[in-house]
Amino acid sequence: MKRYEKFADDIAELIRSGVLAAGQRVPSVRYASQTHGISPSTVFQAYYLLERRGLIRARPRSGYFVNDTFSLAGLGDRAPEPDLRPAVAAQVSESTEVDVSELVFSVLESIKNPDTVPFGSAFPSPALFPLQRLARSLSSATRDMDPRMVVSDLSPGNPSLRRQIALRYMVAGQMLPMEELLITNGALEALNLCLQAVTEPGDLVAIEAPAFYACLQVLERLKLKAVEIPVHPQHGIDLVVLEQALRRYPIKACWSMTSFQNPTGATVPEARKRDLVELLRKHEVPLIEDDVYAELYYGQHAPKPAKAFDTEGLVLHCGSFAKSLAPGYRVGWVAAGRYAQKVERLKLMTSLCASMPAQAAIADYLQHGGYDRHLRKLRHSLEDQQRAMLGAIARYFPAQTRVSQPSGGYFLWVELPETVDSLKVFQAALAQGISIAPGPMFSPTRRFKPFIRLNYGTPWNDTCERAMEMLGKIIRSMMGADAGRRS
Amino acid sequence: MKRYEKFADDIAELIRSGVLAAGQRVPSVRYASQTHGISPSTVFQAYYLLERRGLIRARPRSGYFVNDTFSLAGLGDRAPEPDLRPAVAAQVSESTEVDVSELVFSVLESIKNPDTVPFGSAFPSPALFPLQRLARSLSSATRDMDPRMVVSDLSPGNPSLRRQIALRYMVAGQMLPMEELLITNGALEALNLCLQAVTEPGDLVAIEAPAFYACLQVLERLKLKAVEIPVHPQHGIDLVVLEQALRRYPIKACWSMTSFQNPTGATVPEARKRDLVELLRKHEVPLIEDDVYAELYYGQHAPKPAKAFDTEGLVLHCGSFAKSLAPGYRVGWVAAGRYAQKVERLKLMTSLCASMPAQAAIADYLQHGGYDRHLRKLRHSLEDQQRAMLGAIARYFPAQTRVSQPSGGYFLWVELPETVDSLKVFQAALAQGISIAPGPMFSPTRRFKPFIRLNYGTPWNDTCERAMEMLGKIIRSMMGADAGRRS
Repeated sequence: MKRYEKFADDIAELIRSGVLAAGQRVPSVRYASQTHGISPSTVFQAYYLLERRGLIRARPRSGYFVNDTFSLAGLGDRAPEPDLRPAVAAQVSESTEVDVSELVFSVLESIKNPDTVPFGSAFPSPALFPLQRLARSLSSATRDMDPRMVVSDLSPGNPSLRRQIALRYMVAGQMLPMEELLITNGALEALNLCLQAVTEPGDLVAIEAPAFYACLQVLERLKLKAVEIPVHPQHGIDLVVLEQALRRYPIKACWSMTSFQNPTGATVPEARKRDLVELLRKHEVPLIEDDVYAELYYGQHAPKPAKAFDTEGLVLHCGSFAKSLAPGYRVGWVAAGRYAQKVERLKLMTSLCASMPAQAAIADYLQHGGYDRHLRKLRHSLEDQQRAMLGAIARYFPAQTRVSQPSGGYFLWVELPETVDSLKVFQAALAQGISIAPGPMFSPTRRFKPFIRLNYGTPWNDTCERAMEMLGKIIRSMMGADAGRRS
Repeated sequence: MKRYEKFADDIAELIRSGVLAAGQRVPSVRYASQTHGISPSTVFQAYYLLERRGLIRARPRSGYFVNDTFSLAGLGDRAPEPDLRPAVAAQVSESTEVDVSELVFSVLESIKNPDTVPFGSAFPSPALFPLQRLARSLSSATRDMDPRMVVSDLSPGNPSLRRQIALRYMVAGQMLPMEELLITNGALEALNLCLQAVTEPGDLVAIEAPAFYACLQVLERLKLKAVEIPVHPQHGIDLVVLEQALRRYPIKACWSMTSFQNPTGATVPEARKRDLVELLRKHEVPLIEDDVYAELYYGQHAPKPAKAFDTEGLVLHCGSFAKSLAPGYRVGWVAAGRYAQKVERLKLMTSLCASMPAQAAIADYLQHGGYDRHLRKLRHSLEDQQRAMLGAIARYFPAQTRVSQPSGGYFLWVELPETVDSLKVFQAALAQGISIAPGPMFSPTRRFKPFIRLNYGTPWNDTCERAMEMLGKIIRSMMGADAGRRS
């Protein structure tokens, strides 16, 4: 162990044991270096390490202080009061400053371990993707790459890839001028750019409740405020509440996952999508449509996106290959309607363009790789896996459990008995090597306490089955404990 | 020609001929559709196209209006009054809201054409890079890629690549904990994230004058204000002026390219870099060090970065492979000192992680590809090309011309006779198929009117020689014209 690691561990122990309390200043570099007989740079290295571990934090001009932020071990005690409003609230909640990062980062960090059963993951299993075939596309596409494209193919992106994407829109019945398409570093960047293009810091944005936590993080980063609109587990965002909110607040944008919503799995029916577009048009509010699960439908056809009903260029439609073909390649896109140029310029100012080999590889694969064949197989796998997980819930979870049954994607939204705290379930499950996504991750107001999101994107096997059994036990034990305390 | 294109051209002609003036509303969709007997969606398609061409712009709730922004053709007339302050000003200029995008985007768009002589380009010629060898690394690295890294190798990035980068720091005499390193989508993203990590909208940032225009764009995007600090063409940012500025203004960050600065080519000597770090430390102001040309030195050794003198974690050191190895791969990095965790989280919130095949390819190449051999060759080529371009300037440009002679990189900063307007030179040269970068691109206050930046990153040939001759003629003709008007 290096000297700075040793010193960092000493300080960490002081924090854990409460000698250094939250908010307290840690010893100054000069003091620590003198009293411990180590060099100032060793002290600094130790403090960086502690900072990276989330234990302390630098304040400009004042030194380092013990963090009072979320820590997994102490979470249960400081969790917010239960908020058991039904998932479909009757009215608009107030707008909220968004600060959900600590919780989200803690959860994400904990599920990076590849040995954890990934029910809490945001990704389907990489085993479901044709990664070898993609690597071949990568080889042949970069072998033939014209070096000059380094200059000519900056944003909006690889023309052949954009043509392939436009073709897929066309086959789905939607004419999209190729010039509207911009390639991004995954859909997450597309969503960031779109939201920045249509808002200023401090603006209100209508989001879903529950919402995908990345949406909350983008709002937080851009200093926007959230107006939460309830999502019905079957037919998605509540248009009546949205209309009230649009009348009542100066909302500048609406963000919605209209198909296979994360976390609920809800899909807005086509007629309602038309209504949603019309409602937003009436208020001249742009819709940022996060449609990354579009290809993962179990029915005969893909549900049409809201974009299909947009005649005014007010829908900014974001897609990605990360969930259907090439995780890790970081290739997404946006068709941003009337905001296309503004978004493209923001992209040029932010990261210039997406990685060219990855773009070229996916363009090649779309032309020669058998994407549709792969997608058919993928959809079947996901549907089978959903059936397996629903079966396991029926076998192992308490009888009061309620669960969605989405027609696509790879998430189940599970409502546990209302006394169960999903954050405690998260911790107990993680201790058993199982990850889940607790409900409060999906709300800036930390609602959905008795909810969990389960990922069935992994081919079902004995480990999954045993993990579900263990989860069921954990949940039941918490009902017991709670019931016990009450009596 | 499609109907909407025809209609768009009609409107464009009305704008060009002045029938529709800047700021004027274009016909409403309903009106245009009725009077021209075309469908509203055709009108919308036409208006999107015009918007993308920069001719019109939508205003929420009011319709489309003719743009009054920068247009290349009309630029000369509306250019700011000449500002002939010397490149090294004696004092601090006031802070300035940054809005340089229109000019920069117009210039960048115009030089995308691969047939243009790329003296205005920001990139060296792709012909100088081992793209075939890299493609081999890409193939072998992705063939062996563990699919699970899709989950485990999110930000901070590919561990093997980060290890290779840390090794290169070590060989250069700098110990950097690997945990400090974050892989980004090129240095541009790194710089964006760093600046966001240490500022809030409205804050003041000390930047160089002249500054790389991407820096100005990042400030603009993040709604920050610039305090311009003069750059001496030999030894870089002026520390006396910087100190005055730090005393006078609540500056929250300093952005500097300390080696082979873009556009001047200046390098801050090592002793001054130490002073720079010490000065900023005294004021507790973080330094965002843009060091993307670090490997392109012509001397025996790389100049040390300011980061080498940082003992407090206040220097956020940004690097990239785009200028030295793999343009288009979009792989950069940052060693963000005490801000490392904050920057990593912003990265996770913005674009999750950099493209994994590109990261794996560069990691493989650094291990097996002969990077140092390639770099030696590249440095020799650039030095030869600098000699060739300096020779051409001596042969063809007016005698009053002054030019820097950088000890690395691939830019010359050329001061033309003070009556010459570089924006007019830009237009005239572009008409001859030659691009240059006019001085006002590099300043939020549009200074450096008689300056141009020339890129010698292309292997010298007859086309380059003839283009320099033509540039010389253009510049002389403008001196004549101006002199004529005066008499």
